[in-house]
Amino acid sequence: MILFTDFGPSGLYTGQMLAYLAERAPSVPVIGWLDDAPRQNPRAAAYLLAAYSAAFPAGSIFLAVVDPRVGGDRPPAAVSAGGKWFVGPANGLFELIRRRTPGSVAHEITWRPDRLSKTFHGRDLFAPVAGSLAAGESVEMEERPPDWARRPGWPNDLAEIIYIDSFGNAITGIRASTIDGEIDLTVNKRYVGHAETYSQVPPGGPFWYENSNGLVEIAVNQGSAAEQFGLRIGSPVGLGG
Amino acid sequence: MILFTDFGPSGLYTGQMLAYLAERAPSVPVIGWLDDAPRQNPRAAAYLLAAYSAAFPAGSIFLAVVDPRVGGDRPPAAVSAGGKWFVGPANGLFELIRRRTPGSVAHEITWRPDRLSKTFHGRDLFAPVAGSLAAGESVEMEERPPDWARRPGWPNDLAEIIYIDSFGNAITGIRASTIDGEIDLTVNKRYVGHAETYSQVPPGGPFWYENSNGLVEIAVNQGSAAEQFGLRIGSPVGLGG
Amino acid sequence: MILFTDFGPSGLYTGQMLAYLAERAPSVPVIGWLDDAPRQNPRAAAYLLAAYSAAFPAGSIFLAVVDPRVGGDRPPAAVSAGGKWFVGPANGLFELIRRRTPGSVAHEITWRPDRLSKTFHGRDLFAPVAGSLAAGESVEMEERPPDWARRPGWPNDLAEIIYIDSFGNAITGIRASTIDGEIDLTVNKRYVGHAETYSQVPPGGPFWYENSNGLVEIAVNQGSAAEQFGLRIGSPVGLGG
Repeated sequence: MILFTDFGPSGLYTGQMLAYLAERAPSVPVIGWLDDAPRQNPRAAAYLLAAYSAAFPAGSIFLAVVDPRVGGDRPPAAVSAGGKWFVGPANGLFELIRRRTPGSVAHEITWRPDRLSKTFHGRDLFAPVAGSLAAGESVEMEERPPDWARRPGWPNDLAEIIYIDSFGNAITGIRASTIDGEIDLTVNKRYVGHAETYSQVPPGGPFWYENSNGLVEIAVNQGSAAEQFGLRIGSPVGLGG
Repeated sequence: MILFTDFGPSGLYTGQMLAYLAERAPSVPVIGWLDDAPRQNPRAAAYLLAAYSAAFPAGSIFLAVVDPRVGGDRPPAAVSAGGKWFVGPANGLFELIRRRTPGSVAHEITWRPDRLSKTFHGRDLFAPVAGSLAAGESVEMEERPPDWARRPGWPNDLAEIIYIDSFGNAITGIRASTIDGEIDLTVNKRYVGHAETYSQVPPGGPFWYENSNGLVEIAVNQGSAAEQFGLRIGSPVGLGG
Repeated sequence: MILFTDFGPSGLYTGQMLAYLAERAPSVPVIGWLDDAPRQNPRAAAYLLAAYSAAFPAGSIFLAVVDPRVGGDRPPAAVSAGGKWFVGPANGLFELIRRRTPGSVAHEITWRPDRLSKTFHGRDLFAPVAGSLAAGESVEMEERPPDWARRPGWPNDLAEIIYIDSFGNAITGIRASTIDGEIDLTVNKRYVGHAETYSQVPPGGPFWYENSNGLVEIAVNQGSAAEQFGLRIGSPVGLGG
């Protein structure tokens, strides 16, 4: 099972999910993949999850929790797509996976635990469901039609910063395959040209490139693009000069 | 085995404990539960550990290290409480667990490793002891009377902030079951009313609620309570208006 | 297998390496040892890795990635030293291990994956190689002479800060065994005297000591040496008054 959350690098919440899973599904290996998904931002997280989950093998089960409306009325979902399961809130987080994966099927989770806290469905509801799926057990859920819980207004590629890594590299929601590799980008009214890798630009020099998961990423050789351009999650990215 | 430390999210110290455990007790699964326990603050950590360890099943073994006096004269302890073991410094860290668990028994660890550094008992002493207990091996320790290494002056519930999570939610040391659910709290001279969950208050609105582990927690819907109220570990919390 | 990287505490990159290893070498236990090695600084990281890897048992396989020139012309290396393997970029990261370990042998990795991204050799090249070595499989590599990819100009002990832990303790690249235990150090024009452990100095008092892995470390009892002395990675340390 693969964890994808915005819980932050420390363990109060992730650790409780891990403890639950270790107790109830001890044979299921758990990979703490990402704990700094875009904070409280299912839209940006949806583009990140779609791009980065593609490299995981069929059979992977993602426990994905970016859930600012926990305790509200967004339903819980389990999406089957490309031989993988995605378990988490039906708040758009799986929109791009559903859109890009032919034959994907969304289910509303109808099972409820004996005790469901109002604020931590990751531990109380999503972890048990993902653990059951990983253990090959059935889960009470109902298939929903393709238009259930969709976000039709979201673009196919998001021309915004969706993630800033610890080096200060700024990842966009744009698949590099969808744009001309020679164009300049604009961020905060400044141009950023294309390069293939760090060693092609001088130290301190900015560039954009197709990152190792296929997204357009803005970087500075031996520096921080986020600092140099004042970027944060949601900063817009212009295509072309 | 479950790790509860103030070592921080990066791995220099936690990783060394994990490496030791992987070498000497490879069959024992280790959960890196919490690495941002209240820094150098066994008192606040004691309330957090007591509240959050309750959900773990009997048989759990906690390796708990918040140890500002390492190298001084505080003795090493192993506390048996409710079918769980708690291994760490006898500096008050287990005070609330001992107080709230009928039949708890404290032991002073008398075993010493061949090489005991003066500054990293987590790796050199507590991890080996916890590993041995997890593996079902005996450890040299001596039962101590109930009044050994106690902190009788500490309250049953601590009306202070004891943890701030990565969303900026501020957890207090007050069990919600001990107070009237309709009262207001005061923090930094401002009132905070009660709500059951995030969706009951408008974006930016503060509230307190019983969190998923039973503690009173102060939050802001889609915002940071720590920032809005200037809270940090140790900030006092008033009960009633 | 033991991870030593500068990827930061969140999981976008570490998680992808873990996912790869879980898929291809599921029987190999992985310890996420250190993810905040000196950022983009193979020189400082080399002294840290040499000092801290010594405590790991023979048979350990280190996947070590501090690689600011990824995509450039530095070759990939696998170093056998003292019964351990070190896999990562040949950019000096293994210089001190090679220098301090009699009989160490360096190899250039000649194997290449079907798909090698230009910016994430940790996932695409080093993780597969380390995984194969851990699984006991052969890897295409060629032994290189002792003078291959060396850094002869680097000192045997580095009189600089090479790591600052989450408490603010500042670790130097100086092995304590190489200096007189009674001398004062100077950092930012201020003296720091020797003590054996925290409890020997008053709260707020600075001191240096031999840390639990043999390096000279500057600390402040119940405080942050990094803040009190304005230290960062690379800050010079003077020996003697």
